[in-house]
Order: sequence, then structure tokens, then C-alpha cells
Amino acid sequence: MNSLRIKSDCLREFLAELLGTFTLTCIGCSGNAYVTVAKEGAIAHAVGPWIWGLSLTAGIYVCGGVSGGHVNPAVTLGMASIGKLPWRKVFHYFLAQYIGAFIAAVITYVVYREAILYQFDGKLLTTGPNATAGIFGTFPAPGITTGTAIIDQIVSVAFFLLLINAITDERNMACPKGLVPIAIGMTNLGLLVFSFGYNCGGPINPARDFSPRLFSAMAGWGTDVFSDNIICVAFRVNSYGYFWVPFIGCHIGGIVGCWIYKLFIENHWPKESYDFPNSSESETNNYYNSYKDMALNRVQPI
Amino acid sequence: MNSLRIKSDCLREFLAELLGTFTLTCIGCSGNAYVTVAKEGAIAHAVGPWIWGLSLTAGIYVCGGVSGGHVNPAVTLGMASIGKLPWRKVFHYFLAQYIGAFIAAVITYVVYREAILYQFDGKLLTTGPNATAGIFGTFPAPGITTGTAIIDQIVSVAFFLLLINAITDERNMACPKGLVPIAIGMTNLGLLVFSFGYNCGGPINPARDFSPRLFSAMAGWGTDVFSDNIICVAFRVNSYGYFWVPFIGCHIGGIVGCWIYKLFIENHWPKESYDFPNSSESETNNYYNSYKDMALNRVQPI
Amino acid sequence: MNSLRIKSDCLREFLAELLGTFTLTCIGCSGNAYVTVAKEGAIAHAVGPWIWGLSLTAGIYVCGGVSGGHVNPAVTLGMASIGKLPWRKVFHYFLAQYIGAFIAAVITYVVYREAILYQFDGKLLTTGPNATAGIFGTFPAPGITTGTAIIDQIVSVAFFLLLINAITDERNMACPKGLVPIAIGMTNLGLLVFSFGYNCGGPINPARDFSPRLFSAMAGWGTDVFSDNIICVAFRVNSYGYFWVPFIGCHIGGIVGCWIYKLFIENHWPKESYDFPNSSESETNNYYNSYKDMALNRVQPI
Amino acid sequence: MNSLRIKSDCLREFLAELLGTFTLTCIGCSGNAYVTVAKEGAIAHAVGPWIWGLSLTAGIYVCGGVSGGHVNPAVTLGMASIGKLPWRKVFHYFLAQYIGAFIAAVITYVVYREAILYQFDGKLLTTGPNATAGIFGTFPAPGITTGTAIIDQIVSVAFFLLLINAITDERNMACPKGLVPIAIGMTNLGLLVFSFGYNCGGPINPARDFSPRLFSAMAGWGTDVFSDNIICVAFRVNSYGYFWVPFIGCHIGGIVGCWIYKLFIENHWPKESYDFPNSSESETNNYYNSYKDMALNRVQPI
Repeated sequence: MNSLRIKSDCLREFLAELLGTFTLTCIGCSGNAYVTVAKEGAIAHAVGPWIWGLSLTAGIYVCGGVSGGHVNPAVTLGMASIGKLPWRKVFHYFLAQYIGAFIAAVITYVVYREAILYQFDGKLLTTGPNATAGIFGTFPAPGITTGTAIIDQIVSVAFFLLLINAITDERNMACPKGLVPIAIGMTNLGLLVFSFGYNCGGPINPARDFSPRLFSAMAGWGTDVFSDNIICVAFRVNSYGYFWVPFIGCHIGGIVGCWIYKLFIENHWPKESYDFPNSSESETNNYYNSYKDMALNRVQPI
Repeated sequence: MNSLRIKSDCLREFLAELLGTFTLTCIGCSGNAYVTVAKEGAIAHAVGPWIWGLSLTAGIYVCGGVSGGHVNPAVTLGMASIGKLPWRKVFHYFLAQYIGAFIAAVITYVVYREAILYQFDGKLLTTGPNATAGIFGTFPAPGITTGTAIIDQIVSVAFFLLLINAITDERNMACPKGLVPIAIGMTNLGLLVFSFGYNCGGPINPARDFSPRLFSAMAGWGTDVFSDNIICVAFRVNSYGYFWVPFIGCHIGGIVGCWIYKLFIENHWPKESYDFPNSSESETNNYYNSYKDMALNRVQPI
Repeated sequence: MNSLRIKSDCLREFLAELLGTFTLTCIGCSGNAYVTVAKEGAIAHAVGPWIWGLSLTAGIYVCGGVSGGHVNPAVTLGMASIGKLPWRKVFHYFLAQYIGAFIAAVITYVVYREAILYQFDGKLLTTGPNATAGIFGTFPAPGITTGTAIIDQIVSVAFFLLLINAITDERNMACPKGLVPIAIGMTNLGLLVFSFGYNCGGPINPARDFSPRLFSAMAGWGTDVFSDNIICVAFRVNSYGYFWVPFIGCHIGGIVGCWIYKLFIENHWPKESYDFPNSSESETNNYYNSYKDMALNRVQPI
Repeated sequence: MNSLRIKSDCLREFLAELLGTFTLTCIGCSGNAYVTVAKEGAIAHAVGPWIWGLSLTAGIYVCGGVSGGHVNPAVTLGMASIGKLPWRKVFHYFLAQYIGAFIAAVITYVVYREAILYQFDGKLLTTGPNATAGIFGTFPAPGITTGTAIIDQIVSVAFFLLLINAITDERNMACPKGLVPIAIGMTNLGLLVFSFGYNCGGPINPARDFSPRLFSAMAGWGTDVFSDNIICVAFRVNSYGYFWVPFIGCHIGGIVGCWIYKLFIENHWPKESYDFPNSSESETNNYYNSYKDMALNRVQPI
């Protein structure tokens, strides 16, 4: 196996983010599929948030030690915007995330295709009571305008990044690295579906939303998954559909959340409060480095 | 960014408590909004406690390292009453908490306004089957008197502070700092809504209850949110409504809980049992200091 | 406060076990009360186990550092039977647990009395569709004989003690002390109500079952709470009712569980595998001592 | 007791895996029984995953320090396939797992026999609305072909092993040993029933599926539990029933999952990144050794 060892950081991070995002998206979308084909109704609100929260925990455990466990373009962009990830890494992170989420949608479809067809008379519908497109992409609730949808995504992703920054800041509550995936998964349960899942279904992650939506268009649900309109009071853009809302909203929210944490908490730690052992890079890189350092320099298991 | 570094402890704590209380209240009230607009009925009892428990976990992760993560005036008052928080800090903690909770209610309203209006025929009602005021403030169950409501709040907040004192007491079960937000969030799930949520809806936190209630009065629900009466057998004060019950009950409960822990457990540790390294302050300050010390003096990540 | 410091280990343990059992039982029974007065039906199975599991976590956090966090006579007896608790301590542990659980029932009643009377036409019934006695004591499911009820309690409490022994055995998975309350609370969720709650309602803890039952008899439900019969095929003892079943079954199960762990796992650790630092007592005392030692000898917070 | 100390590693591991698999299967199947006899319908999806997830946590806590906590033949085979378990250990692990799961089914039956007979008119049925065989073995959903069932098991067990490898890899997120059972239990909740439980009911574990199924055939459900057919489009093998699907699928999935983690993540750690202290064996043994080493060489409790 030694000859197969990859030494390029870039390629290792690409593989890690791909596998992590694949894990998050495939477990999550398969959970959506279960809830949909079992026609569970209101029980879904007691089940869905756990599926996505624990999928996120799983995704971070899979790749966190290599890449920091972003598994979400909004996290990558937000972290880059405050200097916790070098900008040069953004592209291959993005690419890995979108590809991983696409493969995830394929696997979910392979596993649930028969059940979907059996339960819904062989039809793959995007609208109406028998719609199943929501297994892959998210869709807005009735009566929600574009403006609200965008605000919903900005607010929830800003919270998401605020919490990720807080939990991974060793100077704050000192969450041990091995607990970080559980802490992020659990605290974000509330955001993912429990609290902010009503308006848009809680996309939060552009890769998790866009790639499966793209796949569903190709797999038989058709281009309606992109053109499903929402009432557009604020921006008068209903002819463009909804699909771009999480894409735009999540990225804005990611940057907003990172900066809120920086301006309210992180920028004000006393200078002497924290020195990373063995860290040769600047303080602003600490999120990325803390994971890296710990993985590289640990000499004894806890 | 260096020039923006705030050096005043008071201002740092103000910003931290504001952001933490904002996080707790906004995720929690938005969860209430989801449950309300989706008209979920009994499922709410399987969903609500998780929303509020995990919101609390999130709130403590956000600000715990700076301010101790009170995010609740009852915690602040209780901790001050047993000497774990200097009295001089109480005022700016209170102010931050009430302001943070108010902003939270604004954001929840912005995100859920359309859904509320769409689902409830454009009306913002305080009473009846279509009441939506409960998204913000709490309201008593039918048949509950003022006396029971006050006792309910004293009991549940006393448990809350008893558990916070136990979990943050390093001499007891030695809960690692990074796990404290999860432990508090989880153990308090039972109090928040699972067990004591019936009579009053589980306010527990005066800022989380009062500020959103005030906002809801301003936002269109009207002054009924303050005057909604409960049957008053015990104190004959029904003309004053219910809104002050959690306010009074929580503060009394907070003090009671702290003193129960002190008198049953904390006061009796053997003298030699515990010395904080690097702590220059008196032992009675240990809650506040333990967080502070750990944040300031940690030299290696776990 | 210094003059109020209690130096007697016995009295400290008494207070700790009393407060811990009070916490467990009051949060748990209040959760039962909520589910009962809200008439939740099947949702109860998605809510009840969490209430009792997290109540147990809360109870152990409250008193674990002082007394080991038994909060259950079956744990105390089982631990004594394998030498992990000195026999001389059993009596004051038992006394504290039964008194703590009784006070808990009083508080639950005070908090929920109005709601119970309001929801059930002012009646306190032990049988029928409007029975509310199950808030306090447990009652068997229809069709369950005494033999099955006893086996149910032996099996579930044996699992309970097996897991407690496994989780607190530092040589096994090395669960950190601060995580023990969560690990025990979570893994025992399955036993408490999820998996073994059908036949008997999951008493598991004789103090949590007997004391509230006794209180409910005094508070107005009457002596029916002791004489409610179950069909008795195995032992032909139906004239004695059900109340003694958890009492006998739990104690047998506690001893069985401890010995299963000892015979399958604990007795076979290599001799050199583990030495407690600073421990002056025999190895067989390690459960009790490990908590004690850690609380007494820890010099730095984790 | 000293004379009863077993020194054979092989026998210790046999007893540990037997007890661990017994714990997992008995708590899990008893949870199935509760859900079945209480006729809970859709609530089952909010309850079942927790039962099985926490059963797994319990099983690993029971035996992890001795045997690594496989409690599943698919884990044992997968780990052996990448060199993390010596091949010579596979046989006694397998034997212990199948025996443990069989005893578990016996105990579940003893505890729930009366309730099953009482709720279902004294009949033990394999098919139809009153079928109760699903308490023990798993059965496919309507409309699912053999091909989909096999893919479903390969995908979900591959995720299962991917996550186990990630969580126990100290170089990745450094999950502390004492948290591993909770992390594995929680992240696998999604796989066990939440996300991949629809098609086949989430067997994932051949021992947990086969041994209880065998017992149920002997206990009165009859050989139908083996011959229940599924529609067979892919392989035209419907005359052989379904029971072998999880058996084959899980073992393939286990190997696939281990190799995916190895090829995407594990093989590419920098050489200097990690040295086990006191480890005299080759690096490829690290999963098995890490547990072993920690149990043997730990000198201070955390």
C-alpha cells in the first residue's frame, strides 16, 4: 500500500472533502427518502433534524482530520473570508464538495428508486401531494417569497458558521477535537430543520442542495426542479425559480456568521491568551491549523 | 483588526452575553414558530424540548469562554447570590441578556412573518386556537392559577441552577469544560419542556420570556400578551395578568437552586480537595474563575 | 459558611444521595405528569425514555462526586454485593434514596395537582382510561403475569448494572468521569422505557417506584395503588398485587448484572493492567474509590 | 475470585464479544418488541433508530476494552480484511457474536412472549398486518427486489465501517476512547434505521439478524421466517427467500467500507504523523492495538 500513499495536501484534502460531503449528503438524502416513501407526515419533524444533524457529525468524523471537515461550500467561503483557510484551497474544496454531493444523490437514488416508484405509482413528481423531488433538492413552503427565503438562508447559515467558529475556538469553551463533530452536529440540529427548516426545508449547504437537485433533474424529475416558482414580492424575480436562493443565501450567511463571531468574540481575546504549540503559521490560520497540528503532532492518545 | 480589539472585560462580557442570549432565544423562538405554523399538535412535545435544549447548548458555546455563558438573568442573579459572580457585573449581564433576547425576537419575526400570516389568515392572535403569540412569550395552560405558575417556575429554575452548579463544579463529576454546554443543554432538556413545560410553557429564562413578549406586543399582537389572565386562587392578583410570573419565579428559583447545591454538596468538600492552578481569587468565585482561568491559562489543546 | 461544613462522610453521602434521587425522581415523575395531563398517547414512547434517561444523567451529575451517584437502591445493593461499596454504607444510601424519592413525589404533586384535577374532572383515579396514578408508581400492561413482570425487572435491571459497571470500569472503554453521567443516561434510555418499558413501565429503581407510589396513596389515589392486581399464572400470588414486583425484581437484577460483568469481563483483566494512583484501598473497591480518588486528588482541571 | 481469572486472550475475547453482542441484540430486539406490541405505527421511526443506536453504544461499552467492541461479524470481517484484526481471531469472534445474538433473542422472547400473545390473539405470525416475526429477523418492504435489498445492505454497512474506521482513527478527529461508543452509536443511528431502514429494516449486522431469525423459527413462527419471498428482478432467485441477503450484503459492505476509508483517508497520513507509544506491533494493526494498548498501558485516569 505504501506506493499508493498520496503526499499532495491538495489531493488529500480533495479526497477527504469529497468523502465527507458524500457521507453527509447520502445519509441525509436517504433519510429524506425514507420519510417520503413512508409518508410519515408530522413525524418527519421529529426525525428529519436528527438525520441531518447526525449526518453532519458523520461527515466531519470522516474527513475532519485532513481537511477541517467543512463538507459545505458556505463553510469554506466563510472560513476563507476571515483568513482561517488560505484562498488557494477554496477551489479544490468547492469542487470536492459538489462532486461528493452529486455521487451521494446517485447512491440515494439507487437505494430508494424501487421504493419511490412502488409508493408513488411509478411517477417522479416535483409538485403536488405526491411530489418526491424534495428527497434531493429543497423547496420553499407555500406562501414564502424570495425575500423571506433569502433572509431565512442568510440567518440560518450565519448561525451555522457562528457556532462552528465558537465550537472550534480553543480559547472559548475548549471543546475537545474528538467531540467537535458531535457538538457541531447537535447544536446545528436546531438550525438544520428543527428551527429554520420551515421556509426552505433547511438547505444550509449549497453543495448538498444543488448537486442532488441537478441529479434529480437528470434522473427523471425533469427541469421543474429548477423552475419551481415562489411568490416574489421582494425582488420580482419569480421567473428565475427558487434553486439559486440557497446558493446565494448560504454563501452570504457564511461570511456574515464568521464576521459576527470575529467582531463579537474572537477579535477580543487577550493577546497572551493562547499560543498553539508547534504552530509556525499566523494566528489567523488557527482553525485550519489547530486540526492540522493536532493530527500531526499528537504523540499520545487521550 | 488589531485596532478593534476591545480590552474592557465589561464590554467583552456585554457583547458575549448579548450574542449568546441572542443565539439561545432566536433558535428557540424560531423553533416555536416552526411548530406553530406547521400546526404539529402533540408532536411538539417530541420536538420542542430538543429545540430549546440545543439552543442553550449553542448559546453557551458562543459566549461561555468570555462570560461564563449565563445567557439568563436567573443564572446571573443566582450565581451572584452565592458569590460566584461579582455583584458589580450583574447589571451589564442583565442588560446584554434582555437586549440580545429582544433582537432575537426581531429576527425570528422577520424570518417567520410570512409563514405566520399565510397559515393564520393574516391575523396575529393572542388567544384561541389560532393564537400565535406563544412563539414569543409563554402562556399558562388552562386551569392553572398564579400560585401554581409561580411554584412551577421556582421549582424548574431551582433545578436548572442546581444542575448548572453541579455540572460546573470540578470537584463533583469533573465535567470537562468543552462538554459543559452539551451536559447543561441535555440535562436541562427535561426541565425546559419535557417535564416542566406544561403549566407555563417552560420560560425558565426571564430575558428569553420578557423581551420577545415585549417585541410581540409592538409587532402587532398587542398589549394582550401582557394582560392575558390566569385564574388566581392563591394570590388574587389576576388583574395583573401572567407576564410577571416567570420574571419573579425565575429569579427566586435561581437563588434557591444555587443555595440548595451549596448547602447539600458544595459547602462540604474537604478543604484540601481542590486548588485551582493560577487562581488568585477566593474559592467562592470558582465558577466564574474556572472558565476564565481555563481560557487564559491553557497552554495545550486537549 | 465555614462553620456549616459537614465533615462526616456518612452525612455527606446521605445528603448527596438524597438530592440526587430527588432530582432523578422529580424530573422523571413530572415528565410522566406532563405526558399524562396532555393526553399524548403514542407520542409518549418518543418522549418518556428521554425524560427518564436525562433525569438519571441529571441525578448523577448532582451527587456523583460525593457518593458515586447511585440514586437507586438496586445499584447500591449490586455494588455492595461485588465489594465496590462497603456494606456499612448500604443503610444510609437506602434511607437517602427512599426519602429523596418521596420528597420528589411531593414536589411533582404540588406542581401538577391543578393540571391533573383540571384535565380529569377533579378525580384522582388508579384504573381505567382516566387513570393518573401512573404518574407516580408504575403499573403492569394488560395481560402480564407476575412471573413475566419479575423476569422483566430482573432482566432490565441486570442490564442496567451491567452497563454501569462497564462504563465506570476504567480498564474497559475508559469513559472520562465527566462523561459518565451522559453515557449512563443515554445507554440506559433503551432500558428505561424504549425497550423494557412495556410490561411494567420501566421502574428499574425501587426507590423511584415505591416512594412515589406510597405518596400517591396518601395524596388521594388511595390504597388501590398497592392492590392493583395482575394475572398471576406463574406464582399464584395475585392477591398481593403488583407493587412488590419491582422491589424484589430490581434488587435481584442488580446483583445479577454486577456478577455477570464481573464473571465475563472484570475478573479477567491482566493483573498489571491498571493501578489507581494514590489509591490506598483494595482493587475491588475501585468503582467507589475511582470517583472518590478523582474528586480528591485531581490537581488540574481538564 | 483470583482462581477464576481467565488468562487466555482468545477466551476473554470470546466472552466479551458474546456479552457485547448479547447486549446489543437483546436491547434492540426488545425495543422492536415494544414497538410491535404497542402497535405504534409511524412513531416507530422516531423511536427505533434510538433503540438500535443506543443498543450499539451499550454493546461497545460492555466489551470494547477487551475485544475492540465489534459485536458484528461484518465489522470483524472488514477489520480483518485491512489487517486491523489478525485473521486467526475471526472464527472465535464470529462464534461469540452468533451465540450472543441467539441468547439475546431467547431473553427477548421470554420477556415479551405474554405481551405478543395477548396483543395478537395468541398467534405468532410472519406475514400480514399482525405479523410479529419482525421483532427478531428483518423483512423487506413491499416492492423491494433482491437486487435493491443487497445494494441497500452493501451501502449501509459500507457507511457503517467507514464511520467506525474514521472515528477510531486517532490521526483523524482524535475521538477519545471513552467517547467512541457514543460517537459510533450516534453517527450510526442514521444508518441503522433513520436513513437506510426502509428497504430491509436495517439489519446491518448478520449475527443480530440471523440468530434471532433462527430462534424465531424454532420458537413458533416457523420456517416462513426464512422463506418469505421478495420480488426478484435482478437475480431471479426469489425461491431462496430473503434471509441470506443481509448475510451476504453486510459482509461485502463491511469490506467495501474499510477499503474506502483506507484508500481515501487512512493510507495517506504522513509517515511521521503518529506513533503509538508502547506499541510493538505493526502499524496496520492499529485499530485493534489502540484499544488494547490503551487498556493495558494507561497509567492515569483522565
